[in-house]
Amino acid sequence: MKKVAVGMFGFGRTGKLVVNEFIKDPIFDVKWVVRRTKNEHHKYASRLLGHEKDEGEIFSRNDIGEDFYKKNPVDIIVDFAGTHAVRSYKAAADEGIKLISAVSKYDTDDYEMLMALKRKTAVLYSPNITLGINFLLIASQLLRKIAPHADIEIIEEHFREKEEISGTAKKIAKALSLDETKKINSIRVGGVVGRHEIVFGLPNQTIRLVHESINRSAFGQGAIFAAKWLIGKPKGLYSMEQIISRIFAEANYVY
Amino acid sequence: MKKVAVGMFGFGRTGKLVVNEFIKDPIFDVKWVVRRTKNEHHKYASRLLGHEKDEGEIFSRNDIGEDFYKKNPVDIIVDFAGTHAVRSYKAAADEGIKLISAVSKYDTDDYEMLMALKRKTAVLYSPNITLGINFLLIASQLLRKIAPHADIEIIEEHFREKEEISGTAKKIAKALSLDETKKINSIRVGGVVGRHEIVFGLPNQTIRLVHESINRSAFGQGAIFAAKWLIGKPKGLYSMEQIISRIFAEANYVY
Amino acid sequence: MKKVAVGMFGFGRTGKLVVNEFIKDPIFDVKWVVRRTKNEHHKYASRLLGHEKDEGEIFSRNDIGEDFYKKNPVDIIVDFAGTHAVRSYKAAADEGIKLISAVSKYDTDDYEMLMALKRKTAVLYSPNITLGINFLLIASQLLRKIAPHADIEIIEEHFREKEEISGTAKKIAKALSLDETKKINSIRVGGVVGRHEIVFGLPNQTIRLVHESINRSAFGQGAIFAAKWLIGKPKGLYSMEQIISRIFAEANYVY
Amino acid sequence: MKKVAVGMFGFGRTGKLVVNEFIKDPIFDVKWVVRRTKNEHHKYASRLLGHEKDEGEIFSRNDIGEDFYKKNPVDIIVDFAGTHAVRSYKAAADEGIKLISAVSKYDTDDYEMLMALKRKTAVLYSPNITLGINFLLIASQLLRKIAPHADIEIIEEHFREKEEISGTAKKIAKALSLDETKKINSIRVGGVVGRHEIVFGLPNQTIRLVHESINRSAFGQGAIFAAKWLIGKPKGLYSMEQIISRIFAEANYVY
Repeated sequence: MKKVAVGMFGFGRTGKLVVNEFIKDPIFDVKWVVRRTKNEHHKYASRLLGHEKDEGEIFSRNDIGEDFYKKNPVDIIVDFAGTHAVRSYKAAADEGIKLISAVSKYDTDDYEMLMALKRKTAVLYSPNITLGINFLLIASQLLRKIAPHADIEIIEEHFREKEEISGTAKKIAKALSLDETKKINSIRVGGVVGRHEIVFGLPNQTIRLVHESINRSAFGQGAIFAAKWLIGKPKGLYSMEQIISRIFAEANYVY
Repeated sequence: MKKVAVGMFGFGRTGKLVVNEFIKDPIFDVKWVVRRTKNEHHKYASRLLGHEKDEGEIFSRNDIGEDFYKKNPVDIIVDFAGTHAVRSYKAAADEGIKLISAVSKYDTDDYEMLMALKRKTAVLYSPNITLGINFLLIASQLLRKIAPHADIEIIEEHFREKEEISGTAKKIAKALSLDETKKINSIRVGGVVGRHEIVFGLPNQTIRLVHESINRSAFGQGAIFAAKWLIGKPKGLYSMEQIISRIFAEANYVY
Repeated sequence: MKKVAVGMFGFGRTGKLVVNEFIKDPIFDVKWVVRRTKNEHHKYASRLLGHEKDEGEIFSRNDIGEDFYKKNPVDIIVDFAGTHAVRSYKAAADEGIKLISAVSKYDTDDYEMLMALKRKTAVLYSPNITLGINFLLIASQLLRKIAPHADIEIIEEHFREKEEISGTAKKIAKALSLDETKKINSIRVGGVVGRHEIVFGLPNQTIRLVHESINRSAFGQGAIFAAKWLIGKPKGLYSMEQIISRIFAEANYVY
Repeated sequence: MKKVAVGMFGFGRTGKLVVNEFIKDPIFDVKWVVRRTKNEHHKYASRLLGHEKDEGEIFSRNDIGEDFYKKNPVDIIVDFAGTHAVRSYKAAADEGIKLISAVSKYDTDDYEMLMALKRKTAVLYSPNITLGINFLLIASQLLRKIAPHADIEIIEEHFREKEEISGTAKKIAKALSLDETKKINSIRVGGVVGRHEIVFGLPNQTIRLVHESINRSAFGQGAIFAAKWLIGKPKGLYSMEQIISRIFAEANYVY
């Protein structure tokens, strides 16, 4: 079976873990990795990550000229870099290259640029691309529909240095129409990687949906899940939540 | 708005709590309650449960003669009694009375009798009729579909005297194709009313779906949910899981 | 072995559960129960609670005259009533009757009256008299001593109607020198009876001490534990935390 | 203040993390690290771990001759290597160097050699040297003493590849006189680093003591805690549980 050719943007702390997950997955062939700086230029990401093979040649952002995507064709671009990266790969959409972005914060112009690309190719955008969190996001909406009178609160726990309220918790609060200033409880202790709990209280029973992050490689798994799903999809805009809610809608259950 | 007239079978420990939930809900009018014995014959269940109104006249099983359902018409029968009760209300199906059974164990003959009634009226059968447990049953199947490589184990906790493995845990194991002799962990301590946890382990994240029972009135809430849903449905066989999976299939999500 | 004779104040919602626990325990003989009103005057608490024996004759507060304690001698008084009750039993201290109070809020005068009685008899005062909560209170202080750099937060969950912050959570916060306005997270959902969790976060590990209330009979068990301990103790003031910390200090460990 | 000079045995997966914790702590000066192989001989462990200073010169086991400890004096040796290491540092005891071993499995001869050293110097041996686990071990014994009728079960969760039952869970079971074949529930899912929960069930309340490992650096923190405590102690045999139980015995509580 032909492998799926992947180009990647971002080789920072999270980016490296994501690249590593794609390199380990036999379905994918990581052609290149674009990073901001000239560090380790033209080396192989695979070697830097301890693998005994050549995969993922490192390019700098400045290397991306007119014909980069013609000379270095891929099926999908996966972006864990930052708001600027979209400028470097918007030409890729003209080549029909599919796009996955997990960038958490976009400048308005960059965000609009990304959104515009949906008219040319399949674009999937999800700031938190982990499977588990997106499952929670959808499942909690269902539970609220089944039990509309339930009281709902969110508990999110992270390492002591994390100052702001979890963006994921805010997103869940929004999806459930909860007042995020009252219903999100933020715990900041020690080295907790990340834990989100949604508590549904009914008079005679309590339901808890809990997601615990072990490490940031979970983003890589989510991106792989998204990439497999996006292959073969027509142009348009997609998100992880949408993938998962479609699976929910089409499922057959045992009972 | 016209109230939904309800007849109930079962006035034991759980039955009383369920009858009480229906009496408290303004949508329903509990016409009568059938119990096995002659205790408190012709008294009102509502009075026995501390309400200041007359609702739910108590009948004995032996009172149910030929024309009981003509003289004492209801829209729905709710059965929390035992395997025998179906024999007392099978005539009700001919009157178009809808049926909800939450009986946990049926003798084969009684079970077949119940199943046969689906050709005459709408029958809903769910041994564990709580909202939360049925949500877990469906949501866990979805998560398994999204993350087929996840390792799954079930932890069920109950009071020390409960000897057998939780039937609910077994049902979840079956729905998830888990080996129930290996993947169900039964904790028996103190007075725990009932706690079920399904753990999904992925390499970099863990998801937990947890249901905690506070008391057995949760069965009443589940039956009320089922009763509201069953009104207006055509004849046929239904279950709680089916209701919930339909809601899942028809939902619109925010993302 | 001679039973311990007990007199009880309080026959409200919690009081009844506590009286019931003492009646069930073969070590104790509940001589009488004093309640505020004249309801069920001279009936037996045991009968009202469904037991097939006569124990705990019901008196009204107004029955307690000069010679009540001489005519109705007991070894210990257990008080789950309210701030006023101490006025009715202060004469008991002169008879050497030991006192256990679990009253949550005292008026200043009543509190001082209770405290003064320690010069005449053994007085144990603990507003939250459950074993589990007092264990958490002591164990969390130890953990803080062992791991002084740990970040600590408290999560307390209760039923939706509970408006104020849990007094128990406040007490734990005070014992751990935590800012109660910042480190207590209050969840109010459904029918949760009561759940307290103390989270200790270290850079590479997290420790959680969790107490879950199943029902208010836990207060009765705590009072029984306290009563057994108080027998044979000299006059003075005691508390549940003190009992437990002494056990901690005197324990021999397996390692 | 003079730093505490430390020599370390073990530079494998866990050993590196432990060495790193000691290097980061300003109280300690890591003089040398002994590893099995000749890899990175005479380099500095600090550099290999990304620090901008020279600390912890790497030696091979074969470098340890007659006068090694005279030429390379330290206050404490910390051993995260294996059963053999004790043979290399038994001469150190003659120099009065204190010893900390966290080796999980010893051959009988090596174990006896370690035990014999207590007659010459202060020896602390704890196979699981994390603070949190040792706290659980002691606190659970106390809770059992306070609530002897509680039902107790242990839940231990680890990554899917871990085959045997957790040694820590077995140790807790032994300390609590639990039948380890019945009361330990082992969950094996995904990438869980390590989670131990001790559930105490009483009729009306449940208490849970939970320890969650985030990563193996927790061993380093435990060893640092042990090392600080061992300085100034006379010769003899010590353990983490013993340190913690002494702290329990000497504590003053707020109540």
